[in-house]
Amino acid sequence: MDETVVFVQGNEACVEGSLYAGVGFFAGYPITPSTEIAEILARRLPARGGRFIQMEDEISSMCAIVGGSLTGNKVMTATSGPGFSLMQEALGYAVMTEIPCVIVNVQRGGPSTGNPTHVGQGDVNQARWGTHGDHAIITLTASNHQDVFAMTVHAFNMAETYRTPVILLFDEVIGHMREKLVIPEPGVLPVVDRLRTSVKRGVDYHPYLPREDGRLPMSDFGGVHRYNVTGLYHDMWGFPSGKPEVVESLLNHLVDKIESNVHEITRYKEAYLEDAEVILLSFGSAARSALHTVENRRRRGEKLGYLELQSIWPFPSLLVREKCSRATSILVVEMNKGQVTEAVKAAVDNPERVFLANRIDGELISPTNIKNILRIIQGKGV
Amino acid sequence: MDETVVFVQGNEACVEGSLYAGVGFFAGYPITPSTEIAEILARRLPARGGRFIQMEDEISSMCAIVGGSLTGNKVMTATSGPGFSLMQEALGYAVMTEIPCVIVNVQRGGPSTGNPTHVGQGDVNQARWGTHGDHAIITLTASNHQDVFAMTVHAFNMAETYRTPVILLFDEVIGHMREKLVIPEPGVLPVVDRLRTSVKRGVDYHPYLPREDGRLPMSDFGGVHRYNVTGLYHDMWGFPSGKPEVVESLLNHLVDKIESNVHEITRYKEAYLEDAEVILLSFGSAARSALHTVENRRRRGEKLGYLELQSIWPFPSLLVREKCSRATSILVVEMNKGQVTEAVKAAVDNPERVFLANRIDGELISPTNIKNILRIIQGKGV
Amino acid sequence: MDETVVFVQGNEACVEGSLYAGVGFFAGYPITPSTEIAEILARRLPARGGRFIQMEDEISSMCAIVGGSLTGNKVMTATSGPGFSLMQEALGYAVMTEIPCVIVNVQRGGPSTGNPTHVGQGDVNQARWGTHGDHAIITLTASNHQDVFAMTVHAFNMAETYRTPVILLFDEVIGHMREKLVIPEPGVLPVVDRLRTSVKRGVDYHPYLPREDGRLPMSDFGGVHRYNVTGLYHDMWGFPSGKPEVVESLLNHLVDKIESNVHEITRYKEAYLEDAEVILLSFGSAARSALHTVENRRRRGEKLGYLELQSIWPFPSLLVREKCSRATSILVVEMNKGQVTEAVKAAVDNPERVFLANRIDGELISPTNIKNILRIIQGKGV
Amino acid sequence: MDETVVFVQGNEACVEGSLYAGVGFFAGYPITPSTEIAEILARRLPARGGRFIQMEDEISSMCAIVGGSLTGNKVMTATSGPGFSLMQEALGYAVMTEIPCVIVNVQRGGPSTGNPTHVGQGDVNQARWGTHGDHAIITLTASNHQDVFAMTVHAFNMAETYRTPVILLFDEVIGHMREKLVIPEPGVLPVVDRLRTSVKRGVDYHPYLPREDGRLPMSDFGGVHRYNVTGLYHDMWGFPSGKPEVVESLLNHLVDKIESNVHEITRYKEAYLEDAEVILLSFGSAARSALHTVENRRRRGEKLGYLELQSIWPFPSLLVREKCSRATSILVVEMNKGQVTEAVKAAVDNPERVFLANRIDGELISPTNIKNILRIIQGKGV
Repeated sequence: MDETVVFVQGNEACVEGSLYAGVGFFAGYPITPSTEIAEILARRLPARGGRFIQMEDEISSMCAIVGGSLTGNKVMTATSGPGFSLMQEALGYAVMTEIPCVIVNVQRGGPSTGNPTHVGQGDVNQARWGTHGDHAIITLTASNHQDVFAMTVHAFNMAETYRTPVILLFDEVIGHMREKLVIPEPGVLPVVDRLRTSVKRGVDYHPYLPREDGRLPMSDFGGVHRYNVTGLYHDMWGFPSGKPEVVESLLNHLVDKIESNVHEITRYKEAYLEDAEVILLSFGSAARSALHTVENRRRRGEKLGYLELQSIWPFPSLLVREKCSRATSILVVEMNKGQVTEAVKAAVDNPERVFLANRIDGELISPTNIKNILRIIQGKGV
Repeated sequence: MDETVVFVQGNEACVEGSLYAGVGFFAGYPITPSTEIAEILARRLPARGGRFIQMEDEISSMCAIVGGSLTGNKVMTATSGPGFSLMQEALGYAVMTEIPCVIVNVQRGGPSTGNPTHVGQGDVNQARWGTHGDHAIITLTASNHQDVFAMTVHAFNMAETYRTPVILLFDEVIGHMREKLVIPEPGVLPVVDRLRTSVKRGVDYHPYLPREDGRLPMSDFGGVHRYNVTGLYHDMWGFPSGKPEVVESLLNHLVDKIESNVHEITRYKEAYLEDAEVILLSFGSAARSALHTVENRRRRGEKLGYLELQSIWPFPSLLVREKCSRATSILVVEMNKGQVTEAVKAAVDNPERVFLANRIDGELISPTNIKNILRIIQGKGV
Repeated sequence: MDETVVFVQGNEACVEGSLYAGVGFFAGYPITPSTEIAEILARRLPARGGRFIQMEDEISSMCAIVGGSLTGNKVMTATSGPGFSLMQEALGYAVMTEIPCVIVNVQRGGPSTGNPTHVGQGDVNQARWGTHGDHAIITLTASNHQDVFAMTVHAFNMAETYRTPVILLFDEVIGHMREKLVIPEPGVLPVVDRLRTSVKRGVDYHPYLPREDGRLPMSDFGGVHRYNVTGLYHDMWGFPSGKPEVVESLLNHLVDKIESNVHEITRYKEAYLEDAEVILLSFGSAARSALHTVENRRRRGEKLGYLELQSIWPFPSLLVREKCSRATSILVVEMNKGQVTEAVKAAVDNPERVFLANRIDGELISPTNIKNILRIIQGKGV
Repeated sequence: MDETVVFVQGNEACVEGSLYAGVGFFAGYPITPSTEIAEILARRLPARGGRFIQMEDEISSMCAIVGGSLTGNKVMTATSGPGFSLMQEALGYAVMTEIPCVIVNVQRGGPSTGNPTHVGQGDVNQARWGTHGDHAIITLTASNHQDVFAMTVHAFNMAETYRTPVILLFDEVIGHMREKLVIPEPGVLPVVDRLRTSVKRGVDYHPYLPREDGRLPMSDFGGVHRYNVTGLYHDMWGFPSGKPEVVESLLNHLVDKIESNVHEITRYKEAYLEDAEVILLSFGSAARSALHTVENRRRRGEKLGYLELQSIWPFPSLLVREKCSRATSILVVEMNKGQVTEAVKAAVDNPERVFLANRIDGELISPTNIKNILRIIQGKGV
């Protein structure tokens, strides 16, 4: 076995995952609590023949990876809330032009500068709606370092499969906590390579003409084909068009390629759901406390179940509805004012069963916090 | 009577509203379809003793109005989708530091560059969630020029009352269409003035210490008081604090000052709701076609009703639930993939009653489009 | 008008109520926070021709009022938790022998010595179940001084009507807080006098032989009739009996005379229940914060309703079920671990609608505490 | 084998169990039908090096065992209803100060003096709620002498494990009936010893500072450590505190140490539950008739099942819900007005399935009584 066991921060697990997935270009600007990702890649990436560049800010970082991807690389940037806000305009450009790229947001407290060194999970809806106009997006998360590694690989795979930005929504606790990571040997986890066009030089390449399976092959920009890339509504050649049928078709394509493949994109973990009366649904570092609570209470005979969403967008509504269909209560554990809670309410029947166990003060929500809210929703008060 | 009747674009109606409300400073960068607002204010504002500045981009525009407000002016900027995306980081700063300001987004097609000269309503959720971290925001809209004027005045009033950014979410049709506007004489519409502190020079001023009524008096920055303003979590003196209780209290304050005052902030219009079996709920230019449809069908004896939301955020859930409680169907008319539709579904009982009548191709949705969708949801097929 | 307006503690309002009702004998032992009742009656009662005695402890106090009642007086004692625990054996004797008496428990924190000077509402179930064996009991409470007065009068009326101990379950906040009390002139509130037998001297008097209306007339012990009084199961003459049919009949009588008259005994207050989606059900000082919350939220358009139980035992199950039938949630506001909450759950359909808003730390539950728990049960988290 | 077979009263089985468990001190006052326990221990205990004392009443008896326990002994007292009522105040002191002790209540008819020589089961709720203030308590029972022995040992084990009073709720039939008892040899039944602190003389001992496993080691009072014991709310040093956070934490600890360990404390017996359509749930002497009925009817092919609760408090709600989930009817067999019935109703779904088969006249409920009630609930009338 060639697997390697390391004891690392979550940020480093993300780096390892990106290298495993084949990242070739990283551009970024340091911001707590994501900075270690850039720091480590600054050493690791050139040593592997990749390129690392520190840009002057987050806007240019986002633009740089768009360019890096278009010219043939798997790309990534990493930031936190304020930087992620600055990236929203260029992120929309990547959505519109269908450029594969991975954006890591190691969440801290917000809004604005907030609390750089403390944890938060308040950027969930921004990941979905931060840039203007209708669109869809993929957003993944993880609650331990093995999953950070796996979800980073999955992020690159999804970005390449669907030609879309993918957001990795980690958080400060995950980013900075150290725990064991087993790096699998190559080939253990599937890696989706860039789908390049089979169209030869001298033959017209249509950047937005799908293959039969719906995927859009790419041609390294600056290479053998000349083609147009624009943030305007465009046709299959990439040329601007305001024709209503072209606009409607493009918008539906941008949304449907992701929303209709929710079952391929979704990743989740579950425990004890078969007979669960109360389900704790969580993600990211909050899910660690949720899982602890479920396992602890199960030992006491209480019928708690655990559902961890490792992909939040596209929201796996059918999955959540099915998994939660028999539960009396669903307690969403998250460190914000209820962003995933609202999505769960919209997904399930009898949304009055859905409650929020949260903490918004920069501290990790604890099993005790969850237990106390469980008591209240079970009508037991403080 | 001193009222003035003019025949203008919606963008000009917005300018007139801002002047009526007492705007003293405007900073912006031109972008279709909002540019007329800047153009007209560049002439009108200096003539009134105010200041206009064209900045190098939308980021600096947003930052400039934050500074302009802090030093004592009522302020505004205007943009469209891509510019609004660029403003998200500084907008979050204004949320966090509680700076009154008005941001006009004259929507066009998106995402990204989209279609600058055509209509869209796809920035509804971005207005709510575009910047990172939990927060709340006020977002107003209008379906005719008289309302554009009134909602612009209301926007300034709400910004000053709650010390918050307020977003005016118009759209290309409203911005560019010309119709009659009656400018009321001063005093007809209430105008909320800047609430300045009564604390004298030499006495400590606490920028985030509420009065008994919950409002936070301001002191012109650079004036008689020295105080701190930061995007970090802060206490009542404005000094950074990471104490969990300070953080939780500040976040709840930022959300509650708006969400808990939804009844004071909400503006809406209604017609024929008493006995309506089908309600058309709409906003902005789409609402014009919805109202036309309702009036037309009423003449034929069909029990249609009309509900126009002039304030979208904070979403008036209780109002919508109450108004829609007796309807068999609710048809949300909007030019996006269903952003307000989702909010309506979350607000009402029996969300399976809620349907979407939309158009996303850059053309204004027409009464005929609505009529065709109405037939389908009534089981009459195409 | 002969009514008197005073500004008093709740304990003094209780004294005034007892005098209005015609108390003739008080025995007690001082214990915070009830002591003012004894102190004031020590002066007031002799001045009115009544008798006050301080006993050596709470056991003897309870025994003394049993004797005082049996010899022809309306009687009362007052204590707090630890004293109430000591009274349980003699209280059971009064239940079994059907002696009218009023026991005031001004609740403080418990169990044991707990916190004498701080508020609690933890003796609700003890009032029902503190003495051994099946039985029934009447327990009243109040949330303001006007009600303390009225409920004290009601307590004497119920004690005389049903020949039973009646417990007045106040609490430290009510007892010690000062507010306005209007003492009505005599005749305004109904007063139930001792029902004395019409049986003449020389004719057999049966102490447990009911009249046609079910009431048991009394004869002043030591007066013209000789009869037996025992804590053993007994027949209509008061003589001990172990006959199964006598035992069953006596036990059913003791329970039914109270449980079957729940509609006559029950006192409650309500507000805004017609269209309430969330009902705050409370009693005692906690009800003050509940009422404040309801009125405050109603002003914001939220459909909250208020139900205050002024009689807790016999529990008004039918009333609570009826009043709560249309509510989405019922939030029981009490300062214990959910004692009334459990009774409400047992009374209503869909007990999963019932939640507990409590505080158990010796501080009065505040509208803010209630609001925060409301948020959680509405799924909105902290 | 060193086991001994005897033919004894249930009261003697209880004595044997207490000696097996290591009782070192007994204080009591005689009361029918518990007196044999004191009588026998008065001889047996001194012979084993323990101490027996007859006190002047039940209050002093309860206080004496509290002191005896604190100074290092396993302790017990025994009484019946009226004596148990008198013990309520000191019992609350033991709850608050966390003193291990066992209180036997051999139930007779109540309330008050009731019927000393006849059976009753009316003190179930008093065992839970007899003393004032929120708290939790452990209450065990038994339906035959082997179980009386085992439950007495379990009572001492639970008292020592959780530092709490434990109530043994037997009844007159069990106490006075004679049947075979096999006294196991030492080591067959587990015995939990007093957990003494490992803190040495001269080092501060904290009487209320839990070990990692949650248990509170004790130090013999009057021995090498000085510490404070008070019925007031107190901190980990035992010193009085009125701090809200200390009060809330202490109250939650007192309740949670028991309620959260319901699965460790619970003891029950079952038969034929797998396919039972009607479950007879019972305890104490009534369970003998219930079991007889089930076995008799099973022989006739009727699908009856049997569930005997040997621990009533903390009420094993989850267990009861689970065991009763598939039954059409649940018939609670008890000799009171339905005290356990109410707890079963609160525990199960569809409480309209729960019926009461009782007898309250001092006679043991018989299989014929149960059969007649069974017919009625099966719709077969009388």
